[in-house]
Amino acid sequence: MPRIIVLRLGHRIGRDQRATTHVALVARAYGADGVIISGERDDALIRRVMGVVETWGGRFEAEYRGDWRRVLREWRMRGGLIIHLTMYGINLPDIIDEIRERWRERDILVVVGGEKVPGELFHIADYNVAVTNQPHSEIAALATFLDWLQEGRELRREFPGGRLKVIPQRRGKKVVETQDRYIKP
Amino acid sequence: MPRIIVLRLGHRIGRDQRATTHVALVARAYGADGVIISGERDDALIRRVMGVVETWGGRFEAEYRGDWRRVLREWRMRGGLIIHLTMYGINLPDIIDEIRERWRERDILVVVGGEKVPGELFHIADYNVAVTNQPHSEIAALATFLDWLQEGRELRREFPGGRLKVIPQRRGKKVVETQDRYIKP
Repeated sequence: MPRIIVLRLGHRIGRDQRATTHVALVARAYGADGVIISGERDDALIRRVMGVVETWGGRFEAEYRGDWRRVLREWRMRGGLIIHLTMYGINLPDIIDEIRERWRERDILVVVGGEKVPGELFHIADYNVAVTNQPHSEIAALATFLDWLQEGRELRREFPGGRLKVIPQRRGKKVVETQDRYIKP
Repeated sequence: MPRIIVLRLGHRIGRDQRATTHVALVARAYGADGVIISGERDDALIRRVMGVVETWGGRFEAEYRGDWRRVLREWRMRGGLIIHLTMYGINLPDIIDEIRERWRERDILVVVGGEKVPGELFHIADYNVAVTNQPHSEIAALATFLDWLQEGRELRREFPGGRLKVIPQRRGKKVVETQDRYIKP
């Protein structure tokens, strides 16, 4: 199955720490294979995200890349598709089937902007995709894009190898420690 | 059609301004009728959200209510359903059909926690609903809940009466001023 990687542009330490953490955790929970963070280098953030992977399981990579243009060039050279999420693009329901069809054979890079998105990105991307053409949240747009791309299957995904696991409850919280880590390869 | 209102708990000025703004804008863009913000009173945030409604159209209300327990009591007394989004609840795909069925006759209040959620909320809610049982983002969870509840139809909703409107583009940005405001009632 081709991969899905999320690229977060323009991260700023301080102002964006929480939003970028949400972007990374949504990428993981909604079935992406990794996140690349660009903008200011924030090793603590990367460590926190990898700490979540350690605790809650699954395979997921988080890395910092300062030069996002190079990330896009390399992605393109390897034949991957580039999707840019923006409120100015084509509305998701009008384009997702076409993207899903092409994803069968090509990895997808989902680019999520920060405060200011360089205009050239609109031209580099294979698809500029909006989720409603209304202003809201790059975190929500990413979640909905990943959900529609994978047709909801990602919400049932298992995350093996973690230390903790939630046992879903109608009332209250139940978290168990798993033994999986002892049998990790 | 029964209403959907989002209740954001535990807002803190400073630390939560951006996240709560995202919650409010996601509520609007994904078809909810309004948002109630609890925690610290933040009139500037309410004004910013209502400014987005003014600019981009549609019907949406944002208000502050200090006493969230009272909001829940009133909601219950009026016969509304209370849904609490939490990673510890029943996973969305396993419960959304039942909730959608009940929504045909009852308004829905979607409760989105902040940093610390009071334990009693798990017992007050009619449904504790998780989106994946993994840690990620209340903003993403809200978006996905609203999207599944409305089966994606909300992504095609129109927002009449705004000053600006995006014309979806494959490349670049196109925003037009509308004339709708002159014919508002």
